[in-house]
Amino acid sequence: MIKLFYAVNTCSLASHIALEEAGAEYSTVRISFATSEQRSPEYLAINPKGRVPAMVTDRGILTETPAMLAFIAQSFPAARLAPLDDPFGFAEVQAFNSYLCSTVHVAHAHRMRGNRWADDPTAIAEMQRKVPQSVGACFELIERDMLREPWVMGEAYTICDPYLFTLSGWLEGDGVDLKRLPKVMAHHRRMSERPAVRKAVAQELT
Amino acid sequence: MIKLFYAVNTCSLASHIALEEAGAEYSTVRISFATSEQRSPEYLAINPKGRVPAMVTDRGILTETPAMLAFIAQSFPAARLAPLDDPFGFAEVQAFNSYLCSTVHVAHAHRMRGNRWADDPTAIAEMQRKVPQSVGACFELIERDMLREPWVMGEAYTICDPYLFTLSGWLEGDGVDLKRLPKVMAHHRRMSERPAVRKAVAQELT
Repeated sequence: MIKLFYAVNTCSLASHIALEEAGAEYSTVRISFATSEQRSPEYLAINPKGRVPAMVTDRGILTETPAMLAFIAQSFPAARLAPLDDPFGFAEVQAFNSYLCSTVHVAHAHRMRGNRWADDPTAIAEMQRKVPQSVGACFELIERDMLREPWVMGEAYTICDPYLFTLSGWLEGDGVDLKRLPKVMAHHRRMSERPAVRKAVAQELT
Repeated sequence: MIKLFYAVNTCSLASHIALEEAGAEYSTVRISFATSEQRSPEYLAINPKGRVPAMVTDRGILTETPAMLAFIAQSFPAARLAPLDDPFGFAEVQAFNSYLCSTVHVAHAHRMRGNRWADDPTAIAEMQRKVPQSVGACFELIERDMLREPWVMGEAYTICDPYLFTLSGWLEGDGVDLKRLPKVMAHHRRMSERPAVRKAVAQELT
């Protein structure tokens, strides 16, 4: 059975929702960032990167959201969470998720995790100052060129959707002007109504 | 036929090598960063992100290195560039490549592309100052916990290898102490001897 290590308000929510959508049997373990549990020896033995998410499977441990999402889609093909028999369609899904992890999440991370890339407090404050602009630019590109509606890939709900939902949930905190992102916000509301999303969100908050 | 848009000394080299390894028929188009060609209207019509790589296929345009690498592996299965019939093995490949794009490449980018995340020149200089440390920490993790030898995934050469080769080629410029990374550097030399790598590298330099 799959065991998901997650932390509240992090990108691990995407994998949590995908497990629900897949109808997977799984359990969850909450990691407390408040007590830096992600850097405890016990957790570093599971994920030496000291980050969430991590997923224990029968075959071993997986990390990195795009890889975990694709693994969930491939392991539960009946849930049809990705175009598994179409390399181009699958690559489009992977490209979207790769953009989220390498560019969108990274822009966001400069608000709270600037110390990854600079030590000086003034420099870290300067990074925080630019977050509304840099995150906003990413989401304007998603709004204009990527999000097909009703789901990211169009008619088919895929593993792109829980990942976008997770990151668009951070927009308000990032100070981005939500009025410029009507499609993204409609997608977020559409996602909020799905039973799998409600269940995963509720479970993380209890 | 596949057309790869690349720029010299960028991560597009990984996809270029993978196309060679796959035995694909493809052509290349060089984009000049010196003249900001990546932000020309012509190139933005291909990739609205204004970045390389981009790949034109019979089905449409793909971007994002991890997605392109997986597409190449899936489109040329005879080249055996990924464990295509094993979701867990495939996820391990994707997890490694996802770490490279979302953490390693991002740490490196703070040397030359700090203006993505701050405007103030002092803050950008502070980011540059930390690059040897942040990139070095990423590669120490790869050295210690990820690189199985002789290839990233062990005996099987995969799409992880050209991607790691590409990013480890930036270590010296990033000011990282190479003596602390004997396995990574041995991998880099091993890669340099492969005919496909020599051919792709030579083609980009002519």
